[in-house]
Amino acid sequence: MRFNEKLTDASKKNESLLCIGLDPDLEKIPSFLRNADDPIFEFNKRIIDSTKDLVIAYKPNLAFYEALGLHGLKSLAKTIRYVPSDIPIIADAKRGDVEHSAKAYAKAIFDVLNFDAVTVNPYMGGDSVKPFLDYAEKGVFILCRTSNQGSKNFQDLCCSSEKRLYEIVAEHVVGWNVNKNCGLVVGATYPEELKKIRDMVGEDMPILIPGVGAQAGDLEKAIKFGTNSSGDMAIISASRVILYAGNEKDFDKKARMVANYIREDINQFR
Amino acid sequence: MRFNEKLTDASKKNESLLCIGLDPDLEKIPSFLRNADDPIFEFNKRIIDSTKDLVIAYKPNLAFYEALGLHGLKSLAKTIRYVPSDIPIIADAKRGDVEHSAKAYAKAIFDVLNFDAVTVNPYMGGDSVKPFLDYAEKGVFILCRTSNQGSKNFQDLCCSSEKRLYEIVAEHVVGWNVNKNCGLVVGATYPEELKKIRDMVGEDMPILIPGVGAQAGDLEKAIKFGTNSSGDMAIISASRVILYAGNEKDFDKKARMVANYIREDINQFR
Repeated sequence: MRFNEKLTDASKKNESLLCIGLDPDLEKIPSFLRNADDPIFEFNKRIIDSTKDLVIAYKPNLAFYEALGLHGLKSLAKTIRYVPSDIPIIADAKRGDVEHSAKAYAKAIFDVLNFDAVTVNPYMGGDSVKPFLDYAEKGVFILCRTSNQGSKNFQDLCCSSEKRLYEIVAEHVVGWNVNKNCGLVVGATYPEELKKIRDMVGEDMPILIPGVGAQAGDLEKAIKFGTNSSGDMAIISASRVILYAGNEKDFDKKARMVANYIREDINQFR
Repeated sequence: MRFNEKLTDASKKNESLLCIGLDPDLEKIPSFLRNADDPIFEFNKRIIDSTKDLVIAYKPNLAFYEALGLHGLKSLAKTIRYVPSDIPIIADAKRGDVEHSAKAYAKAIFDVLNFDAVTVNPYMGGDSVKPFLDYAEKGVFILCRTSNQGSKNFQDLCCSSEKRLYEIVAEHVVGWNVNKNCGLVVGATYPEELKKIRDMVGEDMPILIPGVGAQAGDLEKAIKFGTNSSGDMAIISASRVILYAGNEKDFDKKARMVANYIREDINQFR
């Protein structure tokens, strides 16, 4: 099944555009979990158990697993296997390299780890992204206008023909989308840009929108500008605000409560 | 010891600017190694044994290890420990993410894997690079003008004030260099750009220059334009042309032969 289909099915089934970023931090997870055999997997497992009927996707950021060495990568592999097979899993990896290295990254993420989609960095250009796009069944979200402050350093530069770099990136991505498996990453913190980009890419391209939780983007505008005319094809990602809603035995219930609250908030604006 | 010092010491000791990219590919390594307990480590070990007096640095590209799953990452960790302590090891990782994720990547690369330096992607801006720069003893090579064809898609765009994106990146990096631990990545395939960038960044910033081997950049110009006025502070990286110079029992001798040939070629142009 192609990624966009899987995404649409999960979105319909769970009536949701909410994606939970599975970015576990050993210093922030509830202390009672720290003595578990695999605290990170145990934490993720409970988050997944308590939210799997509320989400359009899960999105582990590889940084948090790599920071824990081989143990972390084992927890990641177990987490991926644990997610129900009808919910898409996006590798937030932001990879990008020359072609033969990008091929190896694509292999790592799609064949070895078995993710459904990945985030990639466009700075190195089309040939660095193509090895990911060649996996026609998988989704590839290209960084466009990211949610952080520093994104203005380069992404917002006014380039030739009066367009900003992130717009030129979005234009290229439209051209790269021959397998219909491209997506874009645009932060909720930049709603005007989001509007411009949705207009540019049309109805069918999914936009991954981080920055609504801890980074405090404007949810209403993110939904209004980020979705297509049917109120679909936007993936609203939140992480810390859900994962660390509680830090006692009932952290999973609190996570569910916050997740559902954001999910309903999103739905009222669709 | 700070990275630039370690780099300079290794360069002097081995009279070399040659960096070997340790990018092992199970399909390309000599077949007799495939039955070893850890073929990748065995391959790297022999390459290191036969070249450690010829190099300024080693540079494993993480993609090739990640593509082999946990086994690959174990081979990587063993490889890092095996490199003599006076030779710098650069993680070719091309990471880049929002600040709290970038912190986790920096931890993975510097604290967990114990690399001396890393390559990072500037697209997300200053706050995405800072967590790496905060490790003042470590080197941080920021992608500027990469060696691949696709680099022209964005890096070569003419941005405001008539400068190209890669030039604006280089300018920012000069500003970010408060800990004197920044470097840049500029492909040997773009010698004119290399000249411009060396002029911009001054004498003390190391430039990592891939693209002289399989990618066929112009070595003479790369040295002339990439080094500082003393013929130093350039790191000329080659990988496949050395690693796969032979594929029989004597592959390590052939690798040494090619490595030394390139090293001497480089030295005659310094």
